[in-house]
Amino acid sequence: MIDNATPWLPSLTTDTPEAGYQLAIKLSRMAVKLTQPSDETRARLRPIYDQDAGALVAGSQVVTANFATVAQANNYWR
Amino acid sequence: MIDNATPWLPSLTTDTPEAGYQLAIKLSRMAVKLTQPSDETRARLRPIYDQDAGALVAGSQVVTANFATVAQANNYWR
Amino acid sequence: MIDNATPWLPSLTTDTPEAGYQLAIKLSRMAVKLTQPSDETRARLRPIYDQDAGALVAGSQVVTANFATVAQANNYWR
Amino acid sequence: MIDNATPWLPSLTTDTPEAGYQLAIKLSRMAVKLTQPSDETRARLRPIYDQDAGALVAGSQVVTANFATVAQANNYWR
Amino acid sequence: MIDNATPWLPSLTTDTPEAGYQLAIKLSRMAVKLTQPSDETRARLRPIYDQDAGALVAGSQVVTANFATVAQANNYWR
Amino acid sequence: MIDNATPWLPSLTTDTPEAGYQLAIKLSRMAVKLTQPSDETRARLRPIYDQDAGALVAGSQVVTANFATVAQANNYWR
Repeated sequence: MIDNATPWLPSLTTDTPEAGYQLAIKLSRMAVKLTQPSDETRARLRPIYDQDAGALVAGSQVVTANFATVAQANNYWR
Repeated sequence: MIDNATPWLPSLTTDTPEAGYQLAIKLSRMAVKLTQPSDETRARLRPIYDQDAGALVAGSQVVTANFATVAQANNYWR
Repeated sequence: MIDNATPWLPSLTTDTPEAGYQLAIKLSRMAVKLTQPSDETRARLRPIYDQDAGALVAGSQVVTANFATVAQANNYWR
Repeated sequence: MIDNATPWLPSLTTDTPEAGYQLAIKLSRMAVKLTQPSDETRARLRPIYDQDAGALVAGSQVVTANFATVAQANNYWR
Repeated sequence: MIDNATPWLPSLTTDTPEAGYQLAIKLSRMAVKLTQPSDETRARLRPIYDQDAGALVAGSQVVTANFATVAQANNYWR
Repeated sequence: MIDNATPWLPSLTTDTPEAGYQLAIKLSRMAVKLTQPSDETRARLRPIYDQDAGALVAGSQVVTANFATVAQANNYWR
Protein backbone atom coordinates (compact mmCIF):
# COMPACT_ATOMS: atom_id res chain seq x y z
CA MET A 1 0.00 0.00 0.00
CA ILE A 2 2.82 2.34 0.91
CA ASP A 3 5.27 2.67 -1.95
CA ASN A 4 8.66 3.04 -0.33
CA ALA A 5 10.13 4.56 -3.46
CA THR A 6 7.77 7.56 -3.34
CA PRO A 7 7.33 8.97 0.16
CA TRP A 8 3.69 9.77 0.94
CA LEU A 9 4.75 12.47 3.39
CA PRO A 10 7.79 14.27 2.00
CA SER A 11 7.17 17.42 4.06
CA LEU A 12 4.73 19.20 6.38
CA THR A 13 5.29 22.48 4.56
CA THR A 14 2.62 23.68 2.14
CA ASP A 15 2.24 26.81 0.04
CA THR A 16 -1.20 27.81 1.30
CA PRO A 17 -3.55 27.17 4.28
CA GLU A 18 -5.86 25.31 1.94
CA ALA A 19 -3.13 22.95 0.77
CA GLY A 20 -2.33 22.49 4.47
CA TYR A 21 -5.91 21.46 5.06
CA GLN A 22 -5.67 18.90 2.26
CA LEU A 23 -2.52 17.53 3.91
CA ALA A 24 -4.41 17.26 7.23
CA ILE A 25 -7.06 15.17 5.44
CA LYS A 26 -4.35 12.95 3.98
CA LEU A 27 -2.69 12.49 7.39
CA SER A 28 -6.08 11.57 8.88
CA ARG A 29 -6.76 8.93 6.24
CA MET A 30 -3.28 7.52 6.79
CA ALA A 31 -3.91 7.38 10.55
CA VAL A 32 -7.00 5.23 9.97
CA LYS A 33 -5.15 3.08 7.42
CA LEU A 34 -2.15 2.45 9.67
CA THR A 35 -4.30 1.90 12.79
CA GLN A 36 -6.23 -0.80 10.96
CA PRO A 37 -3.96 -2.02 8.16
CA SER A 38 -6.38 -4.68 6.93
CA ASP A 39 -8.10 -3.39 3.77
CA GLU A 40 -10.83 -5.97 4.32
CA THR A 41 -11.63 -4.85 7.87
CA ARG A 42 -11.68 -1.18 6.89
CA ALA A 43 -14.00 -2.02 3.99
CA ARG A 44 -16.31 -3.87 6.39
CA LEU A 45 -16.35 -0.93 8.85
CA ARG A 46 -16.96 1.69 6.16
CA PRO A 47 -20.79 1.24 5.89
CA ILE A 48 -21.09 1.21 9.72
CA TYR A 49 -19.01 4.36 9.91
CA ASP A 50 -21.21 5.92 7.23
CA GLN A 51 -24.30 5.57 9.38
CA ASP A 52 -22.70 6.73 12.59
CA ALA A 53 -22.99 10.44 13.41
CA GLY A 54 -20.57 10.01 16.32
CA ALA A 55 -17.88 8.45 14.13
CA LEU A 56 -18.25 11.28 11.63
CA VAL A 57 -17.69 13.92 14.30
CA ALA A 58 -14.79 11.89 15.77
CA GLY A 59 -13.29 11.71 12.29
CA SER A 60 -13.50 15.47 11.97
CA GLN A 61 -11.69 15.74 15.33
CA VAL A 62 -8.78 13.84 13.78
CA VAL A 63 -8.70 16.23 10.82
CA THR A 64 -8.80 19.19 13.20
CA ALA A 65 -5.91 17.85 15.28
CA ASN A 66 -3.82 17.15 12.19
CA PHE A 67 -4.56 20.62 10.84
CA ALA A 68 -3.28 22.08 14.13
CA THR A 69 0.03 20.28 13.57
CA VAL A 70 0.30 21.28 9.91
CA ALA A 71 -0.60 24.91 10.69
CA GLN A 72 2.11 25.07 13.36
CA ALA A 73 4.63 23.46 10.99
CA ASN A 74 3.91 26.29 8.54
CA ASN A 75 4.07 28.97 11.21
CA TYR A 76 0.38 29.56 10.43
CA TRP A 77 1.29 30.85 6.94
CA ARG A 78 1.86 34.26 8.48
CA MET B 1 -18.45 21.95 -3.76
CA ILE B 2 -15.04 23.52 -3.39
CA ASP B 3 -14.55 26.20 -6.00
CA ASN B 4 -10.88 26.09 -6.87
CA ALA B 5 -10.98 29.60 -8.26
CA THR B 6 -11.96 31.11 -4.91
CA PRO B 7 -10.04 29.63 -2.00
CA TRP B 8 -12.30 28.88 0.98
CA LEU B 9 -9.37 29.36 3.37
CA PRO B 10 -7.21 32.22 2.14
CA SER B 11 -5.71 32.92 5.57
CA LEU B 12 -5.91 32.08 9.28
CA THR B 13 -5.54 35.74 10.20
CA THR B 14 -8.64 37.65 11.29
CA ASP B 15 -9.21 41.19 12.51
CA THR B 16 -10.98 40.29 15.76
CA PRO B 17 -11.42 37.34 18.14
CA GLU B 18 -15.04 37.11 17.08
CA ALA B 19 -14.14 36.82 13.39
CA GLY B 20 -11.63 34.17 14.51
CA TYR B 21 -14.45 32.26 16.15
CA GLN B 22 -16.47 32.41 12.94
CA LEU B 23 -13.45 31.01 11.09
CA ALA B 24 -13.23 28.16 13.64
CA ILE B 25 -16.88 27.33 12.89
CA LYS B 26 -16.14 27.34 9.16
CA LEU B 27 -13.11 25.07 9.63
CA SER B 28 -15.24 22.68 11.69
CA ARG B 29 -17.94 22.45 9.03
CA MET B 30 -15.27 21.83 6.41
CA ALA B 31 -13.77 19.06 8.57
CA VAL B 32 -17.13 17.27 8.62
CA LYS B 33 -17.65 17.88 4.90
CA LEU B 34 -14.22 16.57 3.91
CA THR B 35 -14.37 13.61 6.31
CA GLN B 36 -17.65 12.53 4.75
CA PRO B 37 -17.70 14.04 1.26
CA SER B 38 -21.04 12.48 0.28
CA ASP B 39 -23.76 15.13 0.51
CA GLU B 40 -26.34 12.36 0.66
CA THR B 41 -24.74 10.58 3.63
CA ARG B 42 -24.29 13.82 5.56
CA ALA B 43 -27.94 14.68 4.88
CA ARG B 44 -28.97 11.26 6.20
CA LEU B 45 -26.88 11.65 9.35
CA ARG B 46 -28.09 15.19 10.05
CA PRO B 47 -31.39 14.24 11.81
CA ILE B 48 -29.57 11.57 13.88
CA TYR B 49 -26.95 14.10 14.85
CA ASP B 50 -29.71 16.57 15.76
CA GLN B 51 -31.09 14.20 18.37
CA ASP B 52 -27.77 13.18 19.85
CA ALA B 53 -26.52 15.18 22.83
CA GLY B 54 -23.14 13.43 22.63
CA ALA B 55 -22.62 14.38 18.98
CA LEU B 56 -23.49 17.99 19.80
CA VAL B 57 -20.86 18.17 22.53
CA ALA B 58 -18.33 16.37 20.31
CA GLY B 59 -19.08 18.92 17.58
CA SER B 60 -18.38 21.75 20.00
CA GLN B 61 -15.04 20.06 20.85
CA VAL B 62 -14.10 20.39 17.17
CA VAL B 63 -14.98 24.09 17.20
CA THR B 64 -12.95 24.54 20.38
CA ALA B 65 -9.89 22.82 18.91
CA ASN B 66 -10.10 24.87 15.72
CA PHE B 67 -10.46 28.08 17.72
CA ALA B 68 -7.26 27.15 19.60
CA THR B 69 -5.44 26.99 16.26
CA VAL B 70 -6.93 30.22 14.93
CA ALA B 71 -6.22 32.05 18.20
CA GLN B 72 -2.58 30.95 18.11
CA ALA B 73 -2.30 31.96 14.44
CA ASN B 74 -3.42 35.45 15.46
CA ASN B 75 -1.12 35.57 18.47
CA TYR B 76 -4.31 35.71 20.55
CA TRP B 77 -5.13 39.18 19.13
CA ARG B 78 -2.88 40.68 21.81
CA MET C 1 -28.97 35.75 18.84
CA ILE C 2 -25.64 37.44 18.28
CA ASP C 3 -25.96 41.19 18.52
CA ASN C 4 -23.51 42.56 15.98
CA ALA C 5 -23.41 45.95 17.66
CA THR C 6 -22.00 44.51 20.90
CA PRO C 7 -19.29 41.92 20.30
CA TRP C 8 -19.68 38.88 22.57
CA LEU C 9 -15.93 38.23 22.43
CA PRO C 10 -14.10 41.56 22.46
CA SER C 11 -10.86 40.06 23.79
CA LEU C 12 -9.23 36.92 25.20
CA THR C 13 -7.44 38.97 27.85
CA THR C 14 -8.80 38.90 31.41
CA ASP C 15 -7.61 40.44 34.66
CA THR C 16 -7.52 37.25 36.69
CA PRO C 17 -7.37 33.45 36.22
CA GLU C 18 -10.89 33.22 37.57
CA ALA C 19 -12.25 35.70 35.04
CA GLY C 20 -10.39 33.63 32.45
CA TYR C 21 -12.26 30.57 33.62
CA GLN C 22 -15.56 32.39 33.24
CA LEU C 23 -14.56 33.31 29.69
CA ALA C 24 -13.77 29.63 28.99
CA ILE C 25 -17.31 28.75 30.13
CA LYS C 26 -18.73 31.44 27.84
CA LEU C 27 -16.69 30.18 24.87
CA SER C 28 -17.93 26.64 25.56
CA ARG C 29 -21.58 27.70 25.61
CA MET C 30 -21.05 29.61 22.38
CA ALA C 31 -19.45 26.52 20.79
CA VAL C 32 -22.58 24.51 21.56
CA LYS C 33 -24.84 27.34 20.37
CA LEU C 34 -23.02 27.81 17.07
CA THR C 35 -22.65 24.08 16.44
CA GLN C 36 -26.40 23.66 16.83
CA PRO C 37 -27.92 27.08 16.08
CA SER C 38 -31.53 25.90 16.47
CA ASP C 39 -32.84 27.03 19.88
CA GLU C 40 -35.55 24.44 19.60
CA THR C 41 -33.17 21.51 19.02
CA ARG C 42 -30.89 22.60 21.85
CA ALA C 43 -33.91 22.87 24.15
CA ARG C 44 -34.95 19.35 23.15
CA LEU C 45 -31.46 17.95 23.81
CA ARG C 46 -31.07 19.70 27.15
CA PRO C 47 -33.01 17.15 29.29
CA ILE C 48 -31.17 14.27 27.54
CA TYR C 49 -27.87 15.94 28.20
CA ASP C 50 -28.90 16.48 31.82
CA GLN C 51 -29.23 12.75 32.38
CA ASP C 52 -26.07 11.75 30.56
CA ALA C 53 -22.92 11.40 32.65
CA GLY C 54 -20.84 11.02 29.50
CA ALA C 55 -22.13 14.27 28.00
CA LEU C 56 -21.38 16.07 31.26
CA VAL C 57 -17.77 14.92 31.24
CA ALA C 58 -17.45 15.70 27.51
CA GLY C 59 -18.82 19.17 28.23
CA SER C 60 -16.18 19.70 30.90
CA GLN C 61 -13.54 18.65 28.32
CA VAL C 62 -14.69 21.56 26.16
CA VAL C 63 -14.36 23.97 29.10
CA THR C 64 -10.89 22.58 29.84
CA ALA C 65 -9.74 23.02 26.24
CA ASN C 66 -11.07 26.57 26.10
CA PHE C 67 -9.38 27.39 29.40
CA ALA C 68 -6.07 26.17 27.94
CA THR C 69 -6.48 28.71 25.11
CA VAL C 70 -7.50 31.57 27.41
CA ALA C 71 -4.66 30.81 29.84
CA GLN C 72 -2.13 30.88 27.01
CA ALA C 73 -3.62 34.13 25.68
CA ASN C 74 -2.99 35.65 29.10
CA ASN C 75 0.51 34.19 29.37
CA TYR C 76 -0.87 32.20 32.32
CA TRP C 77 -1.33 35.43 34.34
CA ARG C 78 2.32 35.17 35.37
CA MET D 1 -21.30 28.01 45.64
CA ILE D 2 -18.55 30.32 44.49
CA ASP D 3 -17.62 32.77 47.20
CA ASN D 4 -16.74 35.97 45.39
CA ALA D 5 -14.78 37.28 48.36
CA THR D 6 -12.31 34.38 48.26
CA PRO D 7 -11.19 33.51 44.72
CA TRP D 8 -11.10 29.75 44.10
CA LEU D 9 -8.39 30.20 41.48
CA PRO D 10 -6.01 32.93 42.65
CA SER D 11 -3.11 31.68 40.49
CA LEU D 12 -1.92 28.87 38.21
CA THR D 13 1.49 28.90 39.87
CA THR D 14 2.32 26.16 42.37
CA ASP D 15 5.45 25.31 44.34
CA THR D 16 5.75 21.70 43.21
CA PRO D 17 4.57 19.39 40.40
CA GLU D 18 2.45 17.55 42.93
CA ALA D 19 0.67 20.71 44.05
CA GLY D 20 0.17 21.41 40.35
CA TYR D 21 -1.52 18.06 39.99
CA GLN D 22 -3.84 18.87 42.86
CA LEU D 23 -4.72 22.13 41.12
CA ALA D 24 -5.48 20.19 37.93
CA ILE D 25 -7.92 18.03 39.93
CA LYS D 26 -9.55 21.16 41.34
CA LEU D 27 -9.88 22.71 37.87
CA SER D 28 -11.46 19.49 36.61
CA ARG D 29 -14.04 19.41 39.40
CA MET D 30 -14.85 23.05 38.72
CA ALA D 31 -15.29 22.29 35.01
CA VAL D 32 -17.92 19.68 35.86
CA LYS D 33 -19.57 21.98 38.39
CA LEU D 34 -19.78 24.94 36.02
CA THR D 35 -20.86 22.81 33.05
CA GLN D 36 -23.74 21.44 35.10
CA PRO D 37 -24.40 24.02 37.83
CA SER D 38 -27.38 22.16 39.31
CA ASP D 39 -26.26 20.37 42.50
CA GLU D 40 -29.28 18.15 42.21
CA THR D 41 -28.52 16.99 38.65
CA ARG D 42 -24.88 16.34 39.48
CA ALA D 43 -25.93 14.33 42.53
CA ARG D 44 -28.29 12.30 40.32
CA LEU D 45 -25.55 11.62 37.75
CA ARG D 46 -22.93 10.67 40.35
CA PRO D 47 -24.02 7.02 40.84
CA ILE D 48 -24.32 6.56 37.04
CA TYR D 49 -20.86 8.01 36.60
CA ASP D 50 -19.57 5.71 39.34
CA GLN D 51 -20.56 2.64 37.36
CA ASP D 52 -19.33 3.85 34.01
CA ALA D 53 -15.78 2.87 33.05
CA GLY D 54 -15.93 5.19 30.03
CA ALA D 55 -16.89 8.20 32.13
CA LEU D 56 -14.03 7.45 34.52
CA VAL D 57 -11.48 7.42 31.71
CA ALA D 58 -13.03 10.55 30.17
CA GLY D 59 -12.78 12.22 33.58
CA SER D 60 -9.10 11.36 33.74
CA GLN D 61 -8.68 12.94 30.28
CA VAL D 62 -9.96 16.20 31.75
CA VAL D 63 -7.45 15.98 34.61
CA THR D 64 -4.68 15.26 32.11
CA ALA D 65 -5.59 18.26 29.94
CA ASN D 66 -5.75 20.57 32.95
CA PHE D 67 -2.39 19.28 34.18
CA ALA D 68 -0.89 20.12 30.77
CA THR D 69 -2.06 23.73 31.24
CA VAL D 70 -0.83 23.97 34.84
CA ALA D 71 2.54 22.41 33.95
CA GLN D 72 3.02 24.93 31.14
CA ALA D 73 2.02 27.79 33.44
CA ASN D 74 4.80 26.68 35.79
CA ASN D 75 7.31 26.23 33.00
CA TYR D 76 7.27 22.53 33.94
CA TRP D 77 8.89 23.35 37.33
CA ARG D 78 12.27 23.25 35.60
CA MET E 1 -2.99 6.21 49.52
CA ILE E 2 -0.75 9.17 48.84
CA ASP E 3 2.12 9.26 51.29
CA ASN E 4 2.76 12.94 51.92
CA ALA E 5 6.26 12.25 53.20
CA THR E 6 7.41 10.83 49.84
CA PRO E 7 6.16 12.85 46.87
CA TRP E 8 4.87 10.63 44.06
CA LEU E 9 5.72 13.31 41.50
CA PRO E 10 8.99 14.97 42.49
CA SER E 11 9.76 16.17 38.96
CA LEU E 12 8.72 15.96 35.31
CA THR E 13 12.33 15.62 34.22
CA THR E 14 13.59 12.19 33.20
CA ASP E 15 16.92 10.95 31.85
CA THR E 16 15.55 9.22 28.76
CA PRO E 17 12.45 9.23 26.52
CA GLU E 18 11.64 5.76 27.78
CA ALA E 19 11.70 6.84 31.42
CA GLY E 20 9.47 9.73 30.31
CA TYR E 21 7.02 7.24 28.90
CA GLN E 22 6.97 5.36 32.19
CA LEU E 23 6.22 8.65 33.95
CA ALA E 24 3.35 9.27 31.52
CA ILE E 25 1.91 5.88 32.49
CA LYS E 26 2.24 6.77 36.17
CA LEU E 27 0.53 10.14 35.64
CA SER E 28 -2.30 8.38 33.79
CA ARG E 29 -2.86 5.89 36.59
CA MET E 30 -2.87 8.73 39.10
CA ALA E 31 -5.44 10.61 36.99
CA VAL E 32 -7.79 7.63 37.21
CA LYS E 33 -7.08 7.18 40.92
CA LEU E 34 -7.73 10.83 41.78
CA THR E 35 -10.78 11.09 39.51
CA GLN E 36 -12.34 8.12 41.29
CA PRO E 37 -10.67 7.96 44.72
CA SER E 38 -12.74 5.00 45.93
CA ASP E 39 -10.62 1.84 45.74
CA GLU E 40 -13.79 -0.19 45.86
CA THR E 41 -15.43 1.56 42.89
CA ARG E 42 -12.27 1.33 40.80
CA ALA E 43 -12.02 -2.39 41.62
CA ARG E 44 -15.63 -2.84 40.53
CA LEU E 45 -15.03 -0.98 37.24
CA ARG E 46 -11.81 -2.84 36.44
CA PRO E 47 -13.41 -5.98 34.92
CA ILE E 48 -15.83 -3.81 32.89
CA TYR E 49 -12.93 -1.73 31.66
CA ASP E 50 -11.05 -4.92 30.78
CA GLN E 51 -13.74 -5.97 28.35
CA ASP E 52 -14.25 -2.59 26.77
CA ALA E 53 -12.23 -1.87 23.62
CA GLY E 54 -13.35 1.77 23.72
CA ALA E 55 -12.13 2.27 27.28
CA LEU E 56 -8.78 0.74 26.36
CA VAL E 57 -8.29 3.17 23.48
CA ALA E 58 -9.49 6.07 25.64
CA GLY E 59 -6.99 5.01 28.29
CA SER E 60 -4.21 5.09 25.72
CA GLN E 61 -5.32 8.63 24.77
CA VAL E 62 -4.65 9.67 28.37
CA VAL E 63 -1.16 8.13 28.23
CA THR E 64 -0.52 9.90 24.93
CA ALA E 65 -1.59 13.29 26.31
CA ASN E 66 0.54 12.85 29.42
CA PHE E 67 3.51 11.83 27.30
CA ALA E 68 3.10 15.06 25.29
CA THR E 69 3.42 17.03 28.54
CA VAL E 70 6.41 15.04 29.80
CA ALA E 71 8.17 15.27 26.42
CA GLN E 72 7.73 19.05 26.37
CA ALA E 73 8.96 19.29 29.98
CA ASN E 74 12.14 17.53 28.87
CA ASN E 75 12.51 19.64 25.74
CA TYR E 76 11.97 16.40 23.82
CA TRP E 77 15.30 15.02 25.12
CA ARG E 78 17.01 16.84 22.26
CA MET F 1 7.72 -7.80 26.81
CA ILE F 2 9.96 -4.78 27.12
CA ASP F 3 13.61 -5.76 26.79
CA ASN F 4 15.51 -3.45 29.10
CA ALA F 5 18.77 -4.08 27.29
CA THR F 6 17.46 -2.58 24.03
CA PRO F 7 15.43 0.59 24.59
CA TRP F 8 12.27 0.64 22.47
CA LEU F 9 12.29 4.45 22.44
CA PRO F 10 15.89 5.64 22.17
CA SER F 11 14.91 9.05 20.76
CA LEU F 12 12.05 11.14 19.39
CA THR F 13 14.22 12.42 16.56
CA THR F 14 13.74 10.96 13.10
CA ASP F 15 15.30 11.72 9.72
CA THR F 16 12.06 12.28 7.82
CA PRO F 17 8.39 13.12 8.46
CA GLU F 18 7.48 9.65 7.30
CA ALA F 19 9.80 7.97 9.79
CA GLY F 20 8.22 10.28 12.39
CA TYR F 21 4.83 8.94 11.44
CA GLN F 22 6.06 5.39 11.90
CA LEU F 23 7.33 6.36 15.35
CA ALA F 24 3.89 7.81 16.17
CA ILE F 25 2.34 4.45 15.25
CA LYS F 26 4.84 2.67 17.49
CA LEU F 27 4.12 5.03 20.40
CA SER F 28 0.39 4.43 19.93
CA ARG F 29 0.78 0.65 20.03
CA MET F 30 2.93 0.96 23.14
CA ALA F 31 0.26 3.16 24.77
CA VAL F 32 -2.32 0.40 24.27
CA LYS F 33 0.12 -2.26 25.44
CA LEU F 34 1.09 -0.42 28.61
CA THR F 35 -2.49 0.65 29.39
CA GLN F 36 -3.59 -2.99 29.23
CA PRO F 37 -0.45 -5.06 29.89
CA SER F 38 -2.25 -8.41 29.75
CA ASP F 39 -1.53 -10.03 26.37
CA GLU F 40 -4.56 -12.24 26.90
CA THR F 41 -6.98 -9.36 27.50
CA ARG F 42 -5.68 -7.42 24.50
CA ALA F 43 -6.04 -10.54 22.35
CA ARG F 44 -9.63 -10.91 23.56
CA LEU F 45 -10.43 -7.26 22.79
CA ARG F 46 -8.82 -7.32 19.35
CA PRO F 47 -11.80 -8.86 17.44
CA ILE F 48 -14.21 -6.48 19.22
CA TYR F 49 -12.00 -3.56 18.32
CA ASP F 50 -11.86 -4.82 14.72
CA GLN F 51 -15.61 -4.50 14.35
CA ASP F 52 -15.95 -1.15 16.04
CA ALA F 53 -15.84 1.92 13.79
CA GLY F 54 -15.68 4.18 16.85
CA ALA F 55 -12.64 2.39 18.28
CA LEU F 56 -10.90 2.66 14.91
CA VAL F 57 -11.39 6.42 14.78
CA ALA F 58 -10.37 6.75 18.44
CA GLY F 59 -7.24 4.75 17.65
CA SER F 60 -6.41 7.14 14.83
CA GLN F 61 -6.83 10.05 17.31
CA VAL F 62 -4.06 8.48 19.39
CA VAL F 63 -1.79 8.25 16.34
CA THR F 64 -2.58 11.87 15.47
CA ALA F 65 -1.75 13.08 18.99
CA ASN F 66 1.51 11.14 19.05
CA PHE F 67 2.43 12.51 15.63
CA ALA F 68 1.90 16.04 16.98
CA THR F 69 4.46 15.31 19.71
CA VAL F 70 6.98 13.69 17.35
CA ALA F 71 6.60 16.52 14.81
CA GLN F 72 7.26 19.12 17.49
CA ALA F 73 10.27 17.13 18.76
CA ASN F 74 11.69 17.34 15.25
CA ASN F 75 10.88 21.01 14.84
CA TYR F 76 8.52 19.90 12.07
CA TRP F 77 11.51 18.78 9.93
CA ARG F 78 11.83 22.36 8.72
